[in-house]
Amino acid sequence: MRDNSKISNAVIRRLPRYRRILEELMARDIERISSSELSALTGFTASQIRQDFNNFGGFGQQGYGYNVQSLFAQMSLILGLDREYRMVIIGCGNLGQAIANYATYYKRGFLITAMFDVNPKLIGISINDIEVQDYELLEKYLEDNVVDIGIICTTKNSAQDVANKLSQGKVKGIWNFAPMDIEVGEDVILENVHLSDSLNTLAYYISHHVKP
Amino acid sequence: MRDNSKISNAVIRRLPRYRRILEELMARDIERISSSELSALTGFTASQIRQDFNNFGGFGQQGYGYNVQSLFAQMSLILGLDREYRMVIIGCGNLGQAIANYATYYKRGFLITAMFDVNPKLIGISINDIEVQDYELLEKYLEDNVVDIGIICTTKNSAQDVANKLSQGKVKGIWNFAPMDIEVGEDVILENVHLSDSLNTLAYYISHHVKP
Repeated sequence: MRDNSKISNAVIRRLPRYRRILEELMARDIERISSSELSALTGFTASQIRQDFNNFGGFGQQGYGYNVQSLFAQMSLILGLDREYRMVIIGCGNLGQAIANYATYYKRGFLITAMFDVNPKLIGISINDIEVQDYELLEKYLEDNVVDIGIICTTKNSAQDVANKLSQGKVKGIWNFAPMDIEVGEDVILENVHLSDSLNTLAYYISHHVKP
Repeated sequence: MRDNSKISNAVIRRLPRYRRILEELMARDIERISSSELSALTGFTASQIRQDFNNFGGFGQQGYGYNVQSLFAQMSLILGLDREYRMVIIGCGNLGQAIANYATYYKRGFLITAMFDVNPKLIGISINDIEVQDYELLEKYLEDNVVDIGIICTTKNSAQDVANKLSQGKVKGIWNFAPMDIEVGEDVILENVHLSDSLNTLAYYISHHVKP
């Protein structure tokens, strides 16, 4: 594998989409795919796709297409999906519980190890066999356990405090669902989920009567 | 405004991000911004930003930067955010309730008008003053009411059935949170939320020890 630190963020953001589409092709027992077919499925141009793959040393042969299964395996490897990520959820209301369900049922390799909330009505209940703990215990938990990803599902007002605790507790990444900009520690990677971007894009297409 | 049907999807997907960042600048009372400052905030190159804005006829003056408030207003207009969107939610478990809360508290212009579920335990309860109705009543509701957006928060297995009913009921767009590919009617715009893409991107940066 090449030195991935020089690969642009735009390329990296396209990788999960390639991988997802390859997974769907595998489910349909499709073995080979050309870059122009991949283009139709992903919405990226064929030349974009070839350029993207060249970042990682190619993967295909000119005029012969790509082997779906091997491309999927290599994409998974590049994305770091050959290992397990230990995650904690902070904020166990509807959103936190929905994310817990999602991770439990759909995401192999992503393991929820603990959940925290401030709400006495939620502390003590079990969600997918994980007991919600008092948020006061987060700091201690992070001292005693290695956590890769902290997932923030709190309200806007609490998100920065949670981000501070997670950063101090040496998580490697924060997956933030709170609809606000948070600051994270220097060594912490922040991934925001902006649902509004998705909804606003939909509004664009509806209001302009065009299909994507 | 120019003919927006020729604007690439990649450009359109960047617009909500510009708008969101402009909104944050407004909240910080910043009046003018250069394309290089916008570049630092968005992660897009300054030349990319200028190209993007040229699609819509410019907006700025060379060397003078952009007026934040006016750019925000124009972005909102382009995105179709000068009108109201009537939405229904199908699937009122944790995810559906989280989306209902989100839309109610954060998204002006996006109005939830009805919610539906098959679960007798949920039918009849109120979520932000909207009573959950029996899913059997969706078809009739869509006959009697104009609905712009149907939001699918069901499990994977039910998502296609819901998409069919929404398409037949003439919704203009579908916002799909079910982690699967669904088919929609020819005139319906589909926007999928792929949480896994976001999580996989985070995994990439964590596993490669690089910051985005």
